[in-house]
Amino acid sequence: MRKKSSVPYIRIVMLGSGNVATQLAIALRQNGFHISQVYSPNAKHAQALAKTVKASPVSALGKIEKTADAYILAVKDDAIAPLAKKLKLKDKLVIHTSGTAALSILSPASSNTGVLYPLQTISKERILIWRKIPICVEASGKPAKALLDKIARRISDRVVSLGTEERRVLHLAAVFACNFSNHMYSIAARLLKKQDLSFSLLIPLIQETAEKAGALGPDLSQTGPAARRDEKTIKKHLKMLSSDKNYRQLYLSISKSIREK
Amino acid sequence: MRKKSSVPYIRIVMLGSGNVATQLAIALRQNGFHISQVYSPNAKHAQALAKTVKASPVSALGKIEKTADAYILAVKDDAIAPLAKKLKLKDKLVIHTSGTAALSILSPASSNTGVLYPLQTISKERILIWRKIPICVEASGKPAKALLDKIARRISDRVVSLGTEERRVLHLAAVFACNFSNHMYSIAARLLKKQDLSFSLLIPLIQETAEKAGALGPDLSQTGPAARRDEKTIKKHLKMLSSDKNYRQLYLSISKSIREK
Repeated sequence: MRKKSSVPYIRIVMLGSGNVATQLAIALRQNGFHISQVYSPNAKHAQALAKTVKASPVSALGKIEKTADAYILAVKDDAIAPLAKKLKLKDKLVIHTSGTAALSILSPASSNTGVLYPLQTISKERILIWRKIPICVEASGKPAKALLDKIARRISDRVVSLGTEERRVLHLAAVFACNFSNHMYSIAARLLKKQDLSFSLLIPLIQETAEKAGALGPDLSQTGPAARRDEKTIKKHLKMLSSDKNYRQLYLSISKSIREK
Repeated sequence: MRKKSSVPYIRIVMLGSGNVATQLAIALRQNGFHISQVYSPNAKHAQALAKTVKASPVSALGKIEKTADAYILAVKDDAIAPLAKKLKLKDKLVIHTSGTAALSILSPASSNTGVLYPLQTISKERILIWRKIPICVEASGKPAKALLDKIARRISDRVVSLGTEERRVLHLAAVFACNFSNHMYSIAARLLKKQDLSFSLLIPLIQETAEKAGALGPDLSQTGPAARRDEKTIKKHLKMLSSDKNYRQLYLSISKSIREK
């Protein structure tokens, strides 16, 4: 009966002030949620994000309100468990945003827990199109699931229910697809810099590579010396990398992996 | 005096029928050049591309016309030298499209030679936006340079004059930025497949990673367990990869390289 455009009045406390906390709080606020408080042990950080999303800044755990609908722990993986142990929120929905942490890590804080893992590389500087970001959700039970889905579906068109193990594999895959491919760009940038060549020359190539993998799939998209078994070019490249053992070794092992496919 | 939109009447013979030959012939034809012949030892391949660009197919070297303005050898690196030795074109402009082959490899064919290296991953299936593709040019002398520039500038807004050594470094950088990052996508796809998870989940992440590297540069864009020295997650990931020594080794060495930055 309710139209999608009607705004549910849901109060959320955001714990954290880093990249994910910032971008998620903004997305929630833009989609009509009420961020009542932003918590960070660093008062300045709490203030900065609180101002952006019209919330109250809190830097003492004791001052966190007990009556919000949901509490999102968007903090580093190692900080989730210690923080959860200090929160006593009975049956309020407590959420973390990690790709690897178990759901049960939140149990000390509440009987209703959930995971809301946005599958994206998130920095404060970038404007994100949240509607297209896959959000992986996992919940401790039906009441938690209902509210978690309501939150996730309001900011993204692609909400996927995944168990902890599946989410961990997805996170590992994302490390290869995002962090490791970005490191390949970094190596390329450094090789170019030595010759005073601009990294911007590679941008159309990098973007086409990403789009092509999306359209054809990465296996069909594979090109280059290793894929066509062009040993002559591979030898030349290894010689060019002889002054840099680290890159030479990576070139060798990635080329080997491509050939073995 | 001449407006950019006026079409110079330039006759080009395309030697080759693969990905680069096909896409380049189409781009040239679309920009008003006349492709007089398409040569391939495989008559069917010659016919297919010739039909697309309204040229005559040729599968015997002896039938290649001697009076075109330019001859483009868009063939595999190993095939350039043998082909150049069989062509006797006096002072006609003879061009190759390789990232690594020297310019001098074309000397047996003509006294006027050039390189036209498009910095892009090229497959027949994709529509390319040639205007944005950097084209690296190198020429044997002024007359060659003049015609080569005329051809390159007509299809791209980004024509860069590079010597052989610089072009080779650019090609090596492109192997990292394109071929190796695509292999990272492939590994991610295989990890997901084992869990029946769709590769499409990663597409927004892959595209944002590419765009972010273009906007912020790859060093500032680097995120993930290795960048934040999250040894606990790295250990978990290595354990998850224990059944796949190859991927485990790549994970280790790329993470090490990220940390050493």
